[in-house]
Parts: sequence; C-alpha cells; structure tokens
Amino acid sequence: MDFTFLGTSAGTPTRSRNVSGLALCHSGPKPWYLVDCGEGTQHQLLRTRYSVMQLRAIFITHIHGDHTFGLPGLLTSASMLGRSEPLDIIAPVQVQRFIEAAIDNSDSSLSYPLNFIDSETPGFCWQDDHFQVSSVALSHRVDCHAYVFTERNLELQLLRDKLRQNGIEPGPGWGELQKGNDVTLEDGRLLRSEDYTRIQRVPRRVIVAGDNDNPELLTDSSDGTHVLIHEATYTRDVADRVGPWPQHSSAEQVARFAQQVRLPYLVMTHFSSRYQSGPGGAPHINQLAAEAMQHYRGQLFLARDFDTYRLEKDLSLSCLTSSTPT
Amino acid sequence: MDFTFLGTSAGTPTRSRNVSGLALCHSGPKPWYLVDCGEGTQHQLLRTRYSVMQLRAIFITHIHGDHTFGLPGLLTSASMLGRSEPLDIIAPVQVQRFIEAAIDNSDSSLSYPLNFIDSETPGFCWQDDHFQVSSVALSHRVDCHAYVFTERNLELQLLRDKLRQNGIEPGPGWGELQKGNDVTLEDGRLLRSEDYTRIQRVPRRVIVAGDNDNPELLTDSSDGTHVLIHEATYTRDVADRVGPWPQHSSAEQVARFAQQVRLPYLVMTHFSSRYQSGPGGAPHINQLAAEAMQHYRGQLFLARDFDTYRLEKDLSLSCLTSSTPT
Repeated sequence: MDFTFLGTSAGTPTRSRNVSGLALCHSGPKPWYLVDCGEGTQHQLLRTRYSVMQLRAIFITHIHGDHTFGLPGLLTSASMLGRSEPLDIIAPVQVQRFIEAAIDNSDSSLSYPLNFIDSETPGFCWQDDHFQVSSVALSHRVDCHAYVFTERNLELQLLRDKLRQNGIEPGPGWGELQKGNDVTLEDGRLLRSEDYTRIQRVPRRVIVAGDNDNPELLTDSSDGTHVLIHEATYTRDVADRVGPWPQHSSAEQVARFAQQVRLPYLVMTHFSSRYQSGPGGAPHINQLAAEAMQHYRGQLFLARDFDTYRLEKDLSLSCLTSSTPT
Repeated sequence: MDFTFLGTSAGTPTRSRNVSGLALCHSGPKPWYLVDCGEGTQHQLLRTRYSVMQLRAIFITHIHGDHTFGLPGLLTSASMLGRSEPLDIIAPVQVQRFIEAAIDNSDSSLSYPLNFIDSETPGFCWQDDHFQVSSVALSHRVDCHAYVFTERNLELQLLRDKLRQNGIEPGPGWGELQKGNDVTLEDGRLLRSEDYTRIQRVPRRVIVAGDNDNPELLTDSSDGTHVLIHEATYTRDVADRVGPWPQHSSAEQVARFAQQVRLPYLVMTHFSSRYQSGPGGAPHINQLAAEAMQHYRGQLFLARDFDTYRLEKDLSLSCLTSSTPT
C-alpha cells in the first residue's frame, strides 16, 4: 500500500511544494486514488508513475481552492487523453458546481462519465475491490473530512491440515476456497470457504485528514489505524500568533494526539509557506519536526513533494527515495 | 519592452512546457501584463521576476481551459498575499462566470476589486500609461482574439535650437515641455509642447495572438508591428492528418503569413505535446522550425517556457537566456 505526496504546502504553492494532493494505491498504480486536487496536481502527476487513465476515484476533503482548483485541468486532460472509464468524485456539492461551471464556461466536455458522490452524506462509505473508505467529520472553517482507507479482500490462508483431516484432497476446490468461494464436492458436500481458510494479518489502514484544528475528532477512527496523514500548518508559537481563525493544527497539537492514541506512524503535511527547507532568514521546516518530536514517540515523517511511502503487510512504514529533491 | 513565456504547450502540460501564459512589461516588471492564464501560471511566476502584486491586467484570448484554468488560483493567491490594487480582466463573459463560480464554491473572497471587461465588445481598446491594447478577432472553435500591444507616451526630444531661436532660455519650462506639458511664460506667451518637441522613434508594437487557423486576419494589424507571437500547433503534415476541426495553424501557415506581411520577428508557441525536445521516437520540436524557415525569411524563434525576449527601442528583438532549460 503506497502513497505519494503531490503537494505539501498550505494555501499557496512555493517553488518546492505544491498545494494539496495525495496519490494512494493498493498494489501498484492500477487503479489508484487521489485525495484532494490543488492547482497543478496534473503537472505533478507527470513526474510520477500515476496516470489519470487509471485513476479510480477522487476524494476531496473540503472546498478550499488549494484542495480543488486542479480539478478542471485534471479532468479535461484525462478527456483529451481519451479516458472512457467512469470516475467517482467524492466531494461536497460545491465542488460539483465548480467543476460544472468550469466545463460549461470553457467549451469543454468529458469523454467519460463523472459520478459525483456527496461526501457530506451521513454514514458515507465507498468501496471497491481494494479499499473500503469511510469518512470522519473534522473541524475547519468549512465542512471538512478525513478519509479512512481500510484494505479489503485480504489474502486467505488455506487450512490444509483441516482439509486433509476431513478427507478433502488437493485439487481445484482448494484454489476456490482460498479465493473465498464456497465449493460443492462431487459427493454433494458443501464446503464453506470461511471454514477452511483464515486471514493471516490485520487489514492496513491509513487516515488521510483534511484541514482540521481538532485532531481528537479522529480518536475513534484511530483504533486499528497504522498511519495518520495530517496537516501541521504551523509551529505552536506561530499558531498562537495567527490566532484561531484559520482553524489549522500546530505540530504540537497533532503530535500530542498521535501520542495519546498510540499511532505508530504520523506523517505531517500542509505546511505554511513561511517554513523553508534551505538556509536563510525564514523559519526552517525542521522546526515543525522538532516540536512534534517533543510530544510524540512513534515514528514521525515530514512529507515532501514526490515522497512515496510504503506501508507493508507487516505494518511497517518506510519512505522510499523522493524522486525530486525538495 | 520584455515578454516571458510562462507556458508554450497546447491543450495539456508536458514535463517541460506548461499550458498558455505570457508575461509582458514595458520597462521593468512593475507593472506587468498577463496574456492567458492556463493552470499552473502562478507556479511558473514563482520562477520569474513577476509578482501577482504588480500585475496590472490580464488579457484572455479565449475561453478554453488551457488558457483560463489558472485564473482561480492566481487570483486567490494574490488575495492571500494581501493585494489591494484593482485588477482588470479582459476576457469573454464566460471567464467571469467561471471565476465567480470558483470563488463562490471555494469559500473564497478577494482582497481587491476585479474589473471585468468584455473582450468581445466591438471597438475594444484598453490603455494605461505604457500601452494601448486593441484586439483582432481570430478564427477558432470559439470566439478568440489577438491582443495588439502598442507602446504609448514615447519619450520626447526637446528642439533646443528652436527654443533658443525663439528666445526661450533653459529653465524649468524646458523640462515641462519635454514631459509633454504646455508652458505659459512670465511674459504671457503660451508654448505648446508639440511645437518644441519631437518623437524620435516609432512606437514598439507586439501582437500576441490566441488560437487561430487563419493568420491572414492579422494582415491589417501587422502594419507597424515588430513582433508576432502566434501559435503553430502542428507541422503541416500533422495538421493535414488531424483535419480542420481543432482550428489551429501549422508552422507553414504562420510562416507564410509572416513573410507575406514582411514581419521582422515571428515567435511561434503553443506546440502540440507530441513534439519533444529530447532524443527518442517522438517528432522533434525542431521540425516546426525547419518547416517555418522554408517559408519565412525574417527572424524566427520557437518559444520555450521561461524564455524572456526583449524588444529594444531600436526595434531589434533578442532572446535573453532561458532561466530554466527545456
């Protein structure tokens, strides 16, 4: 299960960080899923292995432009490439209005169906073969959600000894049982897959949160979650100076929460453009890491554009080499 | 008079070419003018000396997304930076609808007034201290215009000998006359600036054309024009294969026109993404230059992203070094 940051800057792009976008996939980039789509997301994708042709669904956390203004370009480019597969867009209704206005007022049309799903529907749940995706309401200036990606259809382990004990010899039936299908033997016996298989591991779960000034809203969902991707727009001193209006989190706030719920991995993103990576007078991005590490004893990462992370089946997370240094 | 290409790709961005955008200024980047604003224009600007804070006006040639989808992000980023100066947007009315829908559906507001001017108004003319800008209707799938930038308020040369012959001695009055102001002497004589000054040179003129399959529509405007910036989406063989529907020009077509009207400088842009700069199987971008040179004996340039051109007062055009090689 991989995810790649397409943008890690809050509000406006910088020379090294685009506005929000995250590509996620289960076992290779066909299909893949996009969370948020700031302006320039299609440009960032040109530098990754993800293609708009294999994009299965777009999840939008909230309506702010740094999370949505890349949609018209991405959608129409997919059309120019000849996409025909339907595309799900899970988003607030305003996003649908924005996309429709963009298409209507640019002489555009799409070569494929868009399937809009209102992210604010109570009890929202989306799924395909790879993931079940639920949402958690967050606290921001506008309605905003986290999306919880939980792996589905985990591989089954065949209980070979039990099969043999019951006189069922190896054959095509074993394969069907392992795929999760029930089997009727020639002698009429019905074998249930669930009786002869077991799931060997827990499903991997990643939360991708939108903008949010109250991480504790994720407490319930954190149970069984291995990775939390959450904004940390400011250090605490800057957050205090800026005041509560923007409704963002400080690094300290997110770190304290992650520690409290014992999350194994925390990846912070959506940094104010005031934080820079190079030398100079600007506050350094590492201040955010230093602050978070004072309050969190799990493994902490600061996202950079094009960083790809892999969550293995053994639930270990690693950051693969960034293809474009920031 | 400088102009910088922010995007030179048709329809969709490539790794080295963004979609359309051109920054233009008279004598330094304060103020400056933007022609077209494809997605990612604000990102490109971060790598130039142009700031959205000093942008005076945006001219949109037509409503297609590769010329407009960067507007919401650029406008809201200017607001986040605290811009207060009004901004003129010269564009078809659909662009106003698109921008308003983007703002309304993203919880955005602007810290400065937008002044929409319908580019399809007959007899359109815009001016400030530096430029007069008129438009020419082109031929494309949707209404499309070229913008003709003509320098205004050229520096005046004082006719010193004539002043002395008329008994007017050097003093503050000379300065006023040279600024174009009439002066009343102490003895009551009124001196008209136009009687004691002359303009030493012709005004520089650049045409920035939008998408267009009929360059001859620019014939009348080419008189007195020094530089034509025009799309050349395809070589002629590709244009023939694609057929007339997209309503773009081939390199041959534009070059023949530029030769016919004896334009000194032709800068081609808006290349189909099939043309590449590197080695490999794709048709090379130089095919467009080779084709054009067969039909045009003026000086030809193929635009690259971030190339900056300077049109001097002596009417010579040069391409300054590209800050980012393509």
